[in-house]
Amino acid sequence: MFELIHENKSARAGKLKTAHGTVETPCFMPVATKASVKTLSSSEILDIDVQALISNAFVLYLKPGVDVIEKAGGLHSFMKWGRTIFTDSGGFQILKEEFAPEVKDKGVTFRSPFDETRHLFTPEKCVGVQEALGSDVAMVLDDCPPYGDGHDRMKTSVMRTTDWAKRAKDAHKNKKQLLFSIVQGGTFRDLREKSARDLVDIGFDGYGIGGLSIGEPKDKMLEVLAYTLPLLPRARPRYLMGVGSPVELIRSISLGTDIFDSAFPTRNARHNSVYTWQGSYNITRGKYKTDFSSLEEGCTCYACENYTKAYIRHLMIVYETLGMRLVTIHNLHFLRKLMKKARAAIEENRFSKFESEFSKMHAG
Amino acid sequence: MFELIHENKSARAGKLKTAHGTVETPCFMPVATKASVKTLSSSEILDIDVQALISNAFVLYLKPGVDVIEKAGGLHSFMKWGRTIFTDSGGFQILKEEFAPEVKDKGVTFRSPFDETRHLFTPEKCVGVQEALGSDVAMVLDDCPPYGDGHDRMKTSVMRTTDWAKRAKDAHKNKKQLLFSIVQGGTFRDLREKSARDLVDIGFDGYGIGGLSIGEPKDKMLEVLAYTLPLLPRARPRYLMGVGSPVELIRSISLGTDIFDSAFPTRNARHNSVYTWQGSYNITRGKYKTDFSSLEEGCTCYACENYTKAYIRHLMIVYETLGMRLVTIHNLHFLRKLMKKARAAIEENRFSKFESEFSKMHAG
Repeated sequence: MFELIHENKSARAGKLKTAHGTVETPCFMPVATKASVKTLSSSEILDIDVQALISNAFVLYLKPGVDVIEKAGGLHSFMKWGRTIFTDSGGFQILKEEFAPEVKDKGVTFRSPFDETRHLFTPEKCVGVQEALGSDVAMVLDDCPPYGDGHDRMKTSVMRTTDWAKRAKDAHKNKKQLLFSIVQGGTFRDLREKSARDLVDIGFDGYGIGGLSIGEPKDKMLEVLAYTLPLLPRARPRYLMGVGSPVELIRSISLGTDIFDSAFPTRNARHNSVYTWQGSYNITRGKYKTDFSSLEEGCTCYACENYTKAYIRHLMIVYETLGMRLVTIHNLHFLRKLMKKARAAIEENRFSKFESEFSKMHAG
Repeated sequence: MFELIHENKSARAGKLKTAHGTVETPCFMPVATKASVKTLSSSEILDIDVQALISNAFVLYLKPGVDVIEKAGGLHSFMKWGRTIFTDSGGFQILKEEFAPEVKDKGVTFRSPFDETRHLFTPEKCVGVQEALGSDVAMVLDDCPPYGDGHDRMKTSVMRTTDWAKRAKDAHKNKKQLLFSIVQGGTFRDLREKSARDLVDIGFDGYGIGGLSIGEPKDKMLEVLAYTLPLLPRARPRYLMGVGSPVELIRSISLGTDIFDSAFPTRNARHNSVYTWQGSYNITRGKYKTDFSSLEEGCTCYACENYTKAYIRHLMIVYETLGMRLVTIHNLHFLRKLMKKARAAIEENRFSKFESEFSKMHAG
């Protein structure tokens, strides 16, 4: 199901086969939390050649409800997306204050923001939801405390996440759906090691690295990643959750990460930030007022082939949503191209050079 | 430049030839006030086979500024739209309170909402702006008081609008751009008659009917239209400004109107209202929760060919902008089809039957 095609030092090129196609790794997944990559239609995502996207079991459980998507024939059919779908468990989202969560060993109780009723989300229920959604890759429910919590709380999180992962695996019946667990442990090396070891002992189709990119310094994130990744089995895909800035993607790939997701590239797009090989820039700056070139020279995305900086700047300034859409298309196209180039560099044993050149050029 | 192809009682089928193509009438124009039909790209508007859209000289003068669009090579190039563009003068918008307008015989002074400075917009300046924008049809600056103003104020509006129209015609140099004037007079028959007569005496490429659909009862609007249209030259296009509800379109066509514009069909789309042959419905209603049929049976628009009511309902409820886009596409596609059917009915001398059947069926 995962084929490791080539290694260049720690960097890896691979292929993840799912019930809905092949995902070439390294891979960045756009986020479709509410069953839509914000501002884009599924045909636009396909035009960008996105191979996998990620939605969210907990969020879809709240709205429109699992029954709706099940009746639609699953999430692929509901949102008209024929390629691979990951679903995050929602272990991260459920801990937001608005849900008044209480984490117990049994699961997480939370308050529905829609009718104030309290619900219990267990590892078993979370698997059941994802089986009903019919995603290609399900993530186990994890306990993800905020950055800054102490060793005791983090230790509890690791023990609980392992226990929940085991219960999730026992509950998981759909053999066409892959099941990934999530390594926790905050920034504590002993806990990351324990978490990775215990999860690998249970055995999963792939491993997420959770609890990173949630407020810790970037160097700390890379440090944790550097000592965590080697603990995971070489033959299984590794998925760093929540990372999407171009430089962090490339650095994490060099450490051995295969898969990523993040809302940042699309959120940044909606807030005027345009990704390019030379770094990002704010499209609303005055210097672009009469700049009739495309967002990025040489780019072949729909936005660049059809519209100018001056027009998109105008759209953003007057809050026309077409502007947000065009920059979103551009940023996702940029990341797809970046992943393809990274993969080629790995296959041609020149990833270090690629990484250092990219980091140098990509100041933003 | 306007060819009257067929008349069926008062209803007319025609062709308006502009510098950017032929507009088949009756025609409904989507509104691109800020150089974008809200939520849509220009290729999507083209897919709907829209033949003309309308933007706004005053609004574009404020942002991004005429210089920007002139440097882009005109509005067509700026917004990447190769077919016909009308520009409204902004005579209607400029009178909004936010601009603190003062209407004098010379023109309208207003306060810029961006830098608080006061500006003067004259009929001559308004022509100059529209020539710089390079629209195919320019509308003269008019004085459009709110519905409910008395005979005295309306009389002043008529005199002033005629005077401004004359000045606009004198100032207008671009022979490739058509110039339409605007009949005012509120709901006073004597004033509508005077306005129409005086403008026709000056002579324009076409005639807008302004000051309607601004709060008066619908029957009153149709009554004014019924006695105003016969005063206009048979060989010139007649454009009812601000009308877009399906039933009003068909009734106005039966009275002899050729062209329409309105923000309602697209604004309604963003507020959940879906147009169909049986009337409109609110897509967020509970009954559509697990309705996996398209927005309208048999419709061939992009939204209907790709997505279900249940999915679009979900998108609307969680405020994903893709939902607004899909309903906008559907509503504009519906209106384009409606205009084609109306035209065919006129050409086949069965418009009355078409009108009565449509009105009966189209309850909403």
